[in-house]
Parts: sequence; C-alpha cells; structure tokens
Amino acid sequence: MINKQWHLVSRPTGEPTSSNFKLVEAPVPELQDGQVLVRQHFMSLDPYMRGRMNDGKSYAQPQPLNAVMQGGTVGEVVASRSTSFQVGDKVVGMGGWQQYALVEPAALPMWRKVDTTHVPLSAYLGAVGMPGVTAWVGLNKIIEPKSGETVVVSAASGAVGSVVGQLAKAAGCRAVGLAGGPDKCRAVVEEFGFDACIDYRQHPDLKSLSAALKEACPQGIDGYFENVGGLILDAVLLRANAFSRVAMCGMIAGYNGEPIPLAAPQLILVNRMKVQGFIVSEYLPHWPQALAELGGLVATGKLKYRETIAQGIEAAPEAFIGLLKGKNFGKQLVKLI
Amino acid sequence: MINKQWHLVSRPTGEPTSSNFKLVEAPVPELQDGQVLVRQHFMSLDPYMRGRMNDGKSYAQPQPLNAVMQGGTVGEVVASRSTSFQVGDKVVGMGGWQQYALVEPAALPMWRKVDTTHVPLSAYLGAVGMPGVTAWVGLNKIIEPKSGETVVVSAASGAVGSVVGQLAKAAGCRAVGLAGGPDKCRAVVEEFGFDACIDYRQHPDLKSLSAALKEACPQGIDGYFENVGGLILDAVLLRANAFSRVAMCGMIAGYNGEPIPLAAPQLILVNRMKVQGFIVSEYLPHWPQALAELGGLVATGKLKYRETIAQGIEAAPEAFIGLLKGKNFGKQLVKLI
Repeated sequence: MINKQWHLVSRPTGEPTSSNFKLVEAPVPELQDGQVLVRQHFMSLDPYMRGRMNDGKSYAQPQPLNAVMQGGTVGEVVASRSTSFQVGDKVVGMGGWQQYALVEPAALPMWRKVDTTHVPLSAYLGAVGMPGVTAWVGLNKIIEPKSGETVVVSAASGAVGSVVGQLAKAAGCRAVGLAGGPDKCRAVVEEFGFDACIDYRQHPDLKSLSAALKEACPQGIDGYFENVGGLILDAVLLRANAFSRVAMCGMIAGYNGEPIPLAAPQLILVNRMKVQGFIVSEYLPHWPQALAELGGLVATGKLKYRETIAQGIEAAPEAFIGLLKGKNFGKQLVKLI
Repeated sequence: MINKQWHLVSRPTGEPTSSNFKLVEAPVPELQDGQVLVRQHFMSLDPYMRGRMNDGKSYAQPQPLNAVMQGGTVGEVVASRSTSFQVGDKVVGMGGWQQYALVEPAALPMWRKVDTTHVPLSAYLGAVGMPGVTAWVGLNKIIEPKSGETVVVSAASGAVGSVVGQLAKAAGCRAVGLAGGPDKCRAVVEEFGFDACIDYRQHPDLKSLSAALKEACPQGIDGYFENVGGLILDAVLLRANAFSRVAMCGMIAGYNGEPIPLAAPQLILVNRMKVQGFIVSEYLPHWPQALAELGGLVATGKLKYRETIAQGIEAAPEAFIGLLKGKNFGKQLVKLI
C-alpha cells in the first residue's frame, strides 16, 4: 500500500513555489504495537504554515526539510494496535500532508475522536477546530467585547475571520469585516451576518481605507482581530477608540518577507490601546469550552462557514500558494478520498 | 501685586521655540469667597506638555492659545477664603506656568496638602508625584514583573525612568536603562542602582543597539517601559522574550511630529507580547497606594532621584525646549522663589 506525501525540500524566499515541495511515494509500514493508522479524508491548509517554512526564530520549530509537511487533518482509523482508538473512529490530529498517518504512541494524546452525527468531519478542521478556537480565544480572551461595541476583523471571509464576526454579533456587537473582492464581501454580510464588509482592494491607500472604516464604523473601533497587518492595521489605528483592544492573530501581509511597518505606533499610547499577540495552542485550557460552544453552534446551524476544497493530494502545493494570495473562500481544505 | 505668567501664543510646528510663548504680567486679583491663592515654589516641566501644544486628537484637550500654560506645581497657600486649605499649607496641584495660582472652588479637589517633614516639597512633582506614580502604574499594573525577570526602561535617568528601574530592582528584577551620554548612564548605574545602562547615542543604528541590548540583557527582555519610541522600540522588540510586556508611557522621539514607525510589528505576534498604552490620570484609584509607597521610599532614602532646576519664571520656555532635547537630568523644575 502506497502513501503519497508532500515533503518540503527547500525553503522559499518570498512566495513559495511548487519547486519547494516534492511528492514522495512511501510504503505504508506494518503496524507496530501501540501504533494507529489513520486514512486521511481532509488536510487543512493554513497561513501559519508559511511562517514555519522559514528557518528563523518563531513561536514554533521550523518545518524540517525533506520531511512530510506538517498540518492538521481529519480521517478514519483503519488499523489500530492501541487501546486509545478503534478501527472506524473518526479522528482529528496533526497527520500532515499525506494520505495515511501512522500515529506513534507518544503522539496519540494529540489526536482526538470526533462525533460526526451533527457536525461534518471537515468542520473539525475549521469552525469546530483550530481556526474556530482561534477566533473564540482572540475574541473572548483578548478583545473581550462588550455589547454595543464595534469589532472589526480582517480576512473576514476566512476560516478564522468569519467565526470572529459571527461570535461578535452573538455578543451584541457591531461586526465589520475586511475582505478582498465584492463576492467575498457580499457573502460576509449576507451569509455570515456581519453588519458591513469593506473590500480592501477598492482602498489601496491609507486615506481611502481609513475613510471606508469611518463610514462602516460610525462609533469608532473597540476591538480589532488582526489576520493581515500592513496598511489595514495602520487604517484601523486611525479609527481606534480609547481603550480599544487588538488581538494579533496573524499578519499574512508579511508572511513572504515583505516589510510591514506600523506607521504610527504612538496611537497605541494616545488611545491607551492594548495590542496583544497570541497563539491558540497556548490556550489549551480554553479549548474544551470553545469546542463545545462552536460545535453546538454549527450543529444547530447558527454558525455558518464556507470551505474551498482542492481535490486530491497532488493539488496541495498549488492550493497552499493560492491560499497565501487569498484565492480561497473560507476554510481551505484538500480532499484526499 | 503682579503675577508673571507664560501664555502659549502659537502652536509649534516641529520643535517649540521661545516665540511660541509670551510672558504676561497680570495683577493678582482680590480673593472671592471660596477661592484660594497659592504662591508657587516650583513648576514641573514634562514631555507630555509638547503633545498638548498640538491641536490634534489626543487623550487630553489641547492647551488653549493665549492662556496660561497648564502644568503641575507645588507651593504654599498665602490666602484662603475656603475651608479646604489654610494659609501656610504646602500644596500640590495644577497651578500652571505662573507665580501665583488662584484656585477656584471647583478646582480645589484637584489640589492636595502635602507633608514636607521627611519629603522635600519639590519631590511631590517628581518621585512622589505624577512621574513617580506613572512609573509605579506602568510597572505594577502593565508590566507586572516577576522576580528574576529583566526590565528595560528608556529615558532611564529621567523623572519616570529612574523610578521604574529602582522599583524593578526592589521587585527582584534585573534593571537595564537606556540614556543619552556617559554621565547619565554612569548615574543610572551608580546612583539609581540599575544593573546596566546603555548610552543610545553610541548606537545610532538598529544592529548596534540590538547588540548592546543583547549584551546587557543576556536572558532577553521581559518588560519594557517605553518613554522614547522609534529606533529604541525596534531594538527592544528584537530582544523581547515570549510573553513580554511593553508599557507605553511616552514616545518623546515623535513629539515634534517626526515619523516613528515600528519596523516589525509582527514580533508582537511572534513573541505573543502585550503592548499597552496608558495615562496615569486614568489610574486614580491606584494613586493613594502608589504615593504612600513612593513617599515612604523617598523619606527613608531608599528611592533616589535627581532634579534639574531652572531659576525664575523667565527661564521656563528655554528649560522646556531643553527638556525635549534631553538636556535635563532627572526631574526638570523651575524654581519660582
């Protein structure tokens, strides 16, 4: 039995290209005692993966060269020599960019069984998975919105941003998104229920973007969930209210090494803002509560999400490169079977 | 009786000049019922005053034109038609740049009587006044240092910075200062007891300043008290530890309108930092505790401070312009009698 897998074979400078990856065919080995074999159904592609392709200092170890690309996956247990999981279990874990994940006993605690009765398996990589919990943590533990406040989120049609806005609405806030293009903006308002969405592509300079934010946020901005950085952050700071909070989750504008200076950091002082970076994996104690809430909302249809699904393991690098350019809509997945 | 006072007559563009100010001689009026007359002994000059000279949006109302420059003062009550204060009381308040302050009944709650038995009157404008409380709040309420951590402060020889470092040392931290010139740096270590002080003038570029911080902070930086901004903040971020905190108190590098972009805001995310601006006047509930602690430390000689004293009301504008250029050492005062 053959296991197709993608290795990172060179570190990108600037935008990744398909030459940074290599498709490798490896045999699926015989299971040893304590191991579990997962046949993967979906792979998650996430912007954070670009950061891990660099060799520099970051919050996580770099992705090793000539090894399977790491990443979240969902699938089904097809063989088990462990008491932790049974054949047929639907599971979520860090299976990487490959068709089969052989899970060592030491890694089993990082996998969990999921219930697909009311929540589709793929959602455990999105709204009821890491992206959803990221939205939940940044909003509830850093922005801490109060009813009546205005919350802005960039990459609002994405897997994280779309959840941020819907949770902010549920908390009684005005939710304003930023997204690229009229189709995404329309969906952010009509599908996800935001009060407004700004197409940042129509506002390529600070003055124009700031004016658009002023119109969309007549009471100013109290909370900002940052996925992008660069010009958008500059424009948000110009409209930030006193005591506003910025949850820094990602800065995709700089993921390929572009400089993304903050023009006027003195506004953090003038507005007595709190700007805080966070990594969702460091909020593990909050995951059970967040997953329970998000799972309930998805199961009852109150939390909407979109997926962009690339077909087949071969499509992964191209889909990932597209993700960094904003070509996806909602959660970017690769469907393996 | 004549009351000499300084009015702001035009708003500076860039560095203030003496032509922005005008010395006015006004009569000291007859006291009305409820009023108090304070003969002022010392005026406080503070960097924040530069910001108030602008007309733009900030956390405080701009300094009005053709009116007495606002600012903290200490003095003695020389006439009173109020039950709140008696002739002979030593008081601290916002008396402005003038020899006599006529305090209206509505303003009396913002003045307080001080005890000069063990603490000199002038110290109530410095280590036991607004600058000292600023240090106390930024350190204890935002940086929240733990014993063994490293705390860095810019403008370390100043009225605020010198207190930050001494309180950090008392909390069991390594205290590292940044100051301009060898004399200030020597005093920061020898008088104020910091573990190290970097002369930023010897490190005019990011690489050099970052290397100096690396040497002075071998365990990285856990807390940073920001008074300056610009290159120093960029260099600090390069040495910041995971979960480090920045208390943004002032950014004097940009007070004259210079752009002070933050080169790499993504480091806030990478290091999961908290960057928070604050204004000491918004922490009023903490003032009594802070003043009690600071007063006790000064009275017992455990908290050291320096003063630069300009002589006479006429000297105020020149002393203020010098303050913005870092010509002072410690608290900048104007002595009026």
